[in-house]
Amino acid sequence: MKSIGLIGVGVMGQNLALNIESKGYSVEVYDLDREKVNNYLNSKARSKNISAAGTLEELVASLEKPRKIIMMVNAGKPVDNVIDSLAPLLEKGDIIIDGGNSNFHDTIRRSKDLEARGIFLLGTGVSGGEEGALKGPSLMPGGSYEAWEKVKPILQAIAAKVEDGTPCCDYIGENGAGHFVKMVHNGIEYGDMQLITEAYFIMKNLLGLSDDEMHDIFTEWNRGELDSYLIEITGNILAVKDDDGTPLVEKILDTAGQKGTGKWTAITSLEMGIPLTLITEAVYARTLSAMKEERVNASKILKGPAPNFKGDKKEFVEDIKEALYASKIISYSQGFLLMREAAKEYGWNLNYGGIALVWRGGCIIRSKFLSKIKEAFDSNPNLSNLLLDSFFKEKIEKAQSSWRKVVATAALNGIWTPAMSAALNYYDGYRSERLPANLLQAQRDYFGAHTYERTDKPRGEFFHTDWVNLPNKN
Amino acid sequence: MKSIGLIGVGVMGQNLALNIESKGYSVEVYDLDREKVNNYLNSKARSKNISAAGTLEELVASLEKPRKIIMMVNAGKPVDNVIDSLAPLLEKGDIIIDGGNSNFHDTIRRSKDLEARGIFLLGTGVSGGEEGALKGPSLMPGGSYEAWEKVKPILQAIAAKVEDGTPCCDYIGENGAGHFVKMVHNGIEYGDMQLITEAYFIMKNLLGLSDDEMHDIFTEWNRGELDSYLIEITGNILAVKDDDGTPLVEKILDTAGQKGTGKWTAITSLEMGIPLTLITEAVYARTLSAMKEERVNASKILKGPAPNFKGDKKEFVEDIKEALYASKIISYSQGFLLMREAAKEYGWNLNYGGIALVWRGGCIIRSKFLSKIKEAFDSNPNLSNLLLDSFFKEKIEKAQSSWRKVVATAALNGIWTPAMSAALNYYDGYRSERLPANLLQAQRDYFGAHTYERTDKPRGEFFHTDWVNLPNKN
Repeated sequence: MKSIGLIGVGVMGQNLALNIESKGYSVEVYDLDREKVNNYLNSKARSKNISAAGTLEELVASLEKPRKIIMMVNAGKPVDNVIDSLAPLLEKGDIIIDGGNSNFHDTIRRSKDLEARGIFLLGTGVSGGEEGALKGPSLMPGGSYEAWEKVKPILQAIAAKVEDGTPCCDYIGENGAGHFVKMVHNGIEYGDMQLITEAYFIMKNLLGLSDDEMHDIFTEWNRGELDSYLIEITGNILAVKDDDGTPLVEKILDTAGQKGTGKWTAITSLEMGIPLTLITEAVYARTLSAMKEERVNASKILKGPAPNFKGDKKEFVEDIKEALYASKIISYSQGFLLMREAAKEYGWNLNYGGIALVWRGGCIIRSKFLSKIKEAFDSNPNLSNLLLDSFFKEKIEKAQSSWRKVVATAALNGIWTPAMSAALNYYDGYRSERLPANLLQAQRDYFGAHTYERTDKPRGEFFHTDWVNLPNKN
Repeated sequence: MKSIGLIGVGVMGQNLALNIESKGYSVEVYDLDREKVNNYLNSKARSKNISAAGTLEELVASLEKPRKIIMMVNAGKPVDNVIDSLAPLLEKGDIIIDGGNSNFHDTIRRSKDLEARGIFLLGTGVSGGEEGALKGPSLMPGGSYEAWEKVKPILQAIAAKVEDGTPCCDYIGENGAGHFVKMVHNGIEYGDMQLITEAYFIMKNLLGLSDDEMHDIFTEWNRGELDSYLIEITGNILAVKDDDGTPLVEKILDTAGQKGTGKWTAITSLEMGIPLTLITEAVYARTLSAMKEERVNASKILKGPAPNFKGDKKEFVEDIKEALYASKIISYSQGFLLMREAAKEYGWNLNYGGIALVWRGGCIIRSKFLSKIKEAFDSNPNLSNLLLDSFFKEKIEKAQSSWRKVVATAALNGIWTPAMSAALNYYDGYRSERLPANLLQAQRDYFGAHTYERTDKPRGEFFHTDWVNLPNKN
């Protein structure tokens, strides 16, 4: 009997199976595409403890009980199709692990349906791409705790490990919690990437730095507090030359693709009423980049200032670094706020420090920074906002004059920095005891009798003024 | 027989019926709440050509054919409930007008269901609040053109009129087009309101102006190119004093409410991939304002610069005016872009100049500015973006140095201006032939083999680089 089954032998599934096998488990794989399976068995999976089932029935029959089956198929309808075919073959107590990027609403629905039939679903976020799948991904399992305990040894064995050996895989919460946290991870990835490209954009267009110079800067940054996978690969990318000896990255078309999880994060934050401004700007930035023809046309028509930097470039590069770091703090604080709200709404008991640890290694957003987030939640598990943690508070206060200088200089010079600007505005709004929403409430009451509350009366007491018929100085 | 029926005798329904009656039509009203109906008949509707039906059957029996019935009930389930009860009583060719803020997806679905039974649904946006309903709202009818022609005389009679007598009511497009355009209207209203509150916030916190001074400024602005209902009422609001003689608006709690249509607009733009950054920031601004307790707490912990304005206040007020105007251009250009995309996606043949005209009077966002938008689309019905129209292009170029100064000064002084900043960033991004998405595509190809296109190769040709195993200077 095999330890575990795996459905969907794409690159992610192939690598995940190899990873599992390398930890001493036997794997039975299944895919509708028999040729793909045979190629796999005859190449990468050759002389490994990996075999293939010809049908779902054979797959199910080959597994130890309770059966554990990982699905690595495309999110959406394909997941429903596989579950519909698979579930009737399973017995009570069997466990399906959905390792795709399923929408958490779908996972909540499927969990409910399957648990009514005695079958467990672990909606599990898997991050780290192909390489992570093979060498150690970050894993975010959600669903029944009882089922989690049964797959824990396997999942923790294959996951990435941080310096002290702790696996980047821990139980996230009930039903859709794992896929929710993976979705937020992806949104944060959008934000991190956007911030890095803005730093590059300012250095290139305002300071006129070359790709080689920026390679040195990112490589240097990666040795300090910005130490992270995305900063590291950015440094590497900037050094790569095309056949003609010029930087390859400058030959790449500036239209970003997206697969939708960043968009889901932004939509979820709007639905929940949490101001996730930075990630949303990062999503919009991709859509604006995709409007390439329109931009090329507009660039010939709409004028702006010619960038003109006066000052010490080296110092300003330091300012950009601080702006990037401060904006990153804002992005994560917004992301954790969204998870806090979701935990309330869906009844999840999320362990925020644990989530930071799971993201600490294996995944695209892995960074030193996440250790600091873990420490913040370790020292105060009820921390309402990352910004209020003493480490992050001090960091952002130290960074803020640089951050303000970068945002202001970019605005004056016509350089696009939507995420850094949104982050700074959020900081200034969040720390405002009083925002101008009093005027907005007055407007709403004026034209729509929507009523308002007063600062000198208890919350929940509503007032209406007949603004039009009041004597005023007109 | 009565000319038209009306279901839902809330304040909006009451006023709409009075408006219709005042144009020489007879109205039969119906509401489950008999007491409300009786109160209405004995007060506002006394000795008018308005009577009430005790049942839906009576309502239907009282109407001329084809029957025309306006529903003024809450969006969502209540609309479905009324339609479910009403439709079986109707005959082929009868027309239901849904005047609530229904989601356009619902309107598309209901149109389809009803038209399969030979009944027409006109999903009609109604804007202008209670006063507009009585004296002349802005109306945005969508649905069958044949049905529109039958109700056109009534709807155009009750609508607001612009200076030359043209009604602010014209056919928008098939099925959900009317409710879609109303949704965008509401999103734009969120944006306009947010921009005004930011102008107020800067004047108050950076320039230290009093409410009386700001009253004068908004009153003055309302005489120029910013002439609009929202600027006008803001001027009025700032002059209103509380019982103790101090400005009432300063006693109002700064937590904004929302009913969800701004949120829908933002979500729709994310789903359609259109960067509607300003309206989305306005929606997030309301959610941030609602986090009052957290902000009060954070204001004691998170430091920022003490606002310190050096310069000519009067000049800076002019700069703020320019920043407001330029940001408003961005907001409308984004909104019209969203409608253009929706027209493509849903097959609507939208008349953009006509929409600007419909918004020109009666509704909350009515303004002089909308005449300029109408002119822009009149002179070029295929205008791809408002920013490319010569009037708006010149305006924004003239405004931009002020706009940049305001955004930069606010950033340096810790003043929250999320919408003005997002607008400026959008302008700078939209007019960028090249954005830094090339680096982002390199990152995606690096960690996920997502491939990229090249500037020196045709679109649609995709490349992948094995970034890790390439020789680079490390």
